[in-house]
Amino acid sequence: MARTSLSGFPEWLPDGRVIEQYVLDALRRVFELHGFCGIETRAVETLEQLEAKGETSKEVYVLDRLQALKTAQGRHPGKERRMGLHFDLTVPFARYVVENANELDFPFKRYQIQKVWRGERPQEGRFREFTQADIDVVGNGELPFHFEVDLPLVMAEALNSLPIPPVRVLVNNRKVVQGACECLGVDDVDAALRGLDKLDKIGAEGVAGELAASGIGAAQARALLEMARIRSGSSSEVRSRVAGLGLSGPLLEEGMGELCALLDAAGSRMPGAVVADLRIARGLDYYTGSVYESEVEGHEDLGSICSGGRYDSLASDSKRSYPGVGLSIGVSRLVSRMISAPLVRATRPVPTAVVVAVASEEERERSEAVARALRARGIPTDVAPSAAKFGKQIKFADKRAIPFVWFPGSDGADTVKDIRSGEQVEADPATWAPPAQDLAPGVVPV
Amino acid sequence: MARTSLSGFPEWLPDGRVIEQYVLDALRRVFELHGFCGIETRAVETLEQLEAKGETSKEVYVLDRLQALKTAQGRHPGKERRMGLHFDLTVPFARYVVENANELDFPFKRYQIQKVWRGERPQEGRFREFTQADIDVVGNGELPFHFEVDLPLVMAEALNSLPIPPVRVLVNNRKVVQGACECLGVDDVDAALRGLDKLDKIGAEGVAGELAASGIGAAQARALLEMARIRSGSSSEVRSRVAGLGLSGPLLEEGMGELCALLDAAGSRMPGAVVADLRIARGLDYYTGSVYESEVEGHEDLGSICSGGRYDSLASDSKRSYPGVGLSIGVSRLVSRMISAPLVRATRPVPTAVVVAVASEEERERSEAVARALRARGIPTDVAPSAAKFGKQIKFADKRAIPFVWFPGSDGADTVKDIRSGEQVEADPATWAPPAQDLAPGVVPV
Repeated sequence: MARTSLSGFPEWLPDGRVIEQYVLDALRRVFELHGFCGIETRAVETLEQLEAKGETSKEVYVLDRLQALKTAQGRHPGKERRMGLHFDLTVPFARYVVENANELDFPFKRYQIQKVWRGERPQEGRFREFTQADIDVVGNGELPFHFEVDLPLVMAEALNSLPIPPVRVLVNNRKVVQGACECLGVDDVDAALRGLDKLDKIGAEGVAGELAASGIGAAQARALLEMARIRSGSSSEVRSRVAGLGLSGPLLEEGMGELCALLDAAGSRMPGAVVADLRIARGLDYYTGSVYESEVEGHEDLGSICSGGRYDSLASDSKRSYPGVGLSIGVSRLVSRMISAPLVRATRPVPTAVVVAVASEEERERSEAVARALRARGIPTDVAPSAAKFGKQIKFADKRAIPFVWFPGSDGADTVKDIRSGEQVEADPATWAPPAQDLAPGVVPV
Repeated sequence: MARTSLSGFPEWLPDGRVIEQYVLDALRRVFELHGFCGIETRAVETLEQLEAKGETSKEVYVLDRLQALKTAQGRHPGKERRMGLHFDLTVPFARYVVENANELDFPFKRYQIQKVWRGERPQEGRFREFTQADIDVVGNGELPFHFEVDLPLVMAEALNSLPIPPVRVLVNNRKVVQGACECLGVDDVDAALRGLDKLDKIGAEGVAGELAASGIGAAQARALLEMARIRSGSSSEVRSRVAGLGLSGPLLEEGMGELCALLDAAGSRMPGAVVADLRIARGLDYYTGSVYESEVEGHEDLGSICSGGRYDSLASDSKRSYPGVGLSIGVSRLVSRMISAPLVRATRPVPTAVVVAVASEEERERSEAVARALRARGIPTDVAPSAAKFGKQIKFADKRAIPFVWFPGSDGADTVKDIRSGEQVEADPATWAPPAQDLAPGVVPV
């Protein structure tokens, strides 16, 4: 990471950015292979829109025009609509869908990779600006269940295409939790969900305390916590353990049916990628079916770097609703771990594969002509910044881990040197190419 | 453009985003071919940093945490450092260079493609959020002149790689204007620059008025305006017309030497791409050498979509200065014109090249297996969202201009149909591929 002069606002040095760019390109590639189109939404939403998600409104950065503040003595001038920076990409996407519904084809599959901002207190050491990579599919009025299987598998494929330890998607279903509450006679389902969502943070006893404080009885809480301990990739095991709780009811059955269908389909398409984990509640109240979190093997402390779920009425206007399912990757948190662990390194901090040496400033144009010929064939090429001694020009390449230095020959016979091996061969800029693995900076496990 | 529910904050529909993404990818490719590394800086800077560029401070969006505002009765709480959204990428880059100087290798060449924000008044119809694509090179203490030739040519190459009319880079040199002022005895060079910068907007008479108001005499103003009329791609013509003004002095000579060297080198490397235009002043006071604007043939009304210049002390701390040269493309303005003119169209709004039909929901997994085989070979593939009648599934592809529909055969003999020609052939998902031009959405001139 670069020096951070504002805490919570990470910046990468060039080699860190190579890693981040690699991750972004890999994610985009998988999303596009699956037919998701890329869109972006504006960074700002009206405060009204942002505050509709009450839970997160505490983290919003609001905007004011500096000059407007100056004329209004430091207060927001009442006549302008107040805007804030978006804190996720789901709320803006829902707004985009509703606004452009007549122009979009449904089901509409989109990916969206953008920065988001949260006004965390500086002392909490959290990112206040970070990149998310989301995929969602929304239908017009209805959305088949199979998308609740498809989308977590796209994310599993995307994450497992990265040079990081295996990523598992953990799944649960809101209908299972709500169904269990129904069977148990727990009326305040939201309180149950909020409590269970804290299991990782405050442990079973802590959750039991929270549930009790919400008026949920001890036996009910015990049953919910017992269910929350169920974790398995096998639908039959999940089914039998839930059955062992002695609960039954139509909503629970419906939820179990969906959860097991998801496990079965995922198990056949991508074995091991998806595991049921009934502790997963997700804090957001708009989820109505499958919910997802994830974990990176050996990096469980990182928490869920990819989460989401099914929602039925997040995007809706007076006439229609657009049910959807989506997941969001916390790219900055993942990249930060990849760099700091470190899990990977960039083979070089620059795109350059070849530096063309310059014999004298009078001959710079000749070196430029070589560079032009190489670039025309897709080879990233730089020209030495000054006609220094060749040793210094080689050092320019070496410092940046650029593998090749090109020497225009005084008699027209050019040579190119692999500065790692020292091997130097005659070469023609119209035909020579570096080995494929040297063409662009790579990202390799360490 | 999508419906814009907040004026000045553009959003594209999926086909518009295909065009924007095409432009961004093309620019990135050229920048990387020339050895520029990609970095990003945080979206926010301290207000102090932003206000140091007094001229633009009027356009800054300042941030407040909503909860902090609520507890401080609507005013910024004094104890937190005030932050604002960056209004360009040059000021943040200068800060990044100074902060990370010990970690960077100089000369440092970077490209940076990010959103920027300007708190324009809503009624002015300008973008308040837009994307810029910048390249800069900075040296440690010194920076050779040849970069003032190299960088505008990289931009000319990048812009001319797009499916738009030819783009010309227009150049001048601050030393020429300052040198002329020196010869003419004009003391207030800034006033002269500010006046000349408005030539396009208010015309020669308007500028003459402004110059007079700044205490610049009529004869001096006439000479400056006469010089501002010089426009030519030929260094000898520029030289003789400047000589015709009867001015001479060391600074003017130095500037003319640089301007002509730039024209000569550009003329040999990329004929016609660079033209001297002595009316170019650039409003920003940090430029010290070459200054650049640009124009798109036939779209001169769009103004300069790529501008920049040489600066000597923008990035500096108490110990060192990092002189640089850079240019910035106003991507959103360009893309907006490409879409609205229209200059181009996207061949389809989705990445998908093939839709695999689904015969029945029970056989969905078979269609998924075909999709998996195609994706594994880099072919963007979607699976039909429902097992509707095949006619409806073909319509799903047709509405999105997806060229191929795949039919898993009941006897294992799959077929693929080009829905444009109607041609349907037997195909194996392990070997079939679409023609190269159908693999990804294209952007073609209209």
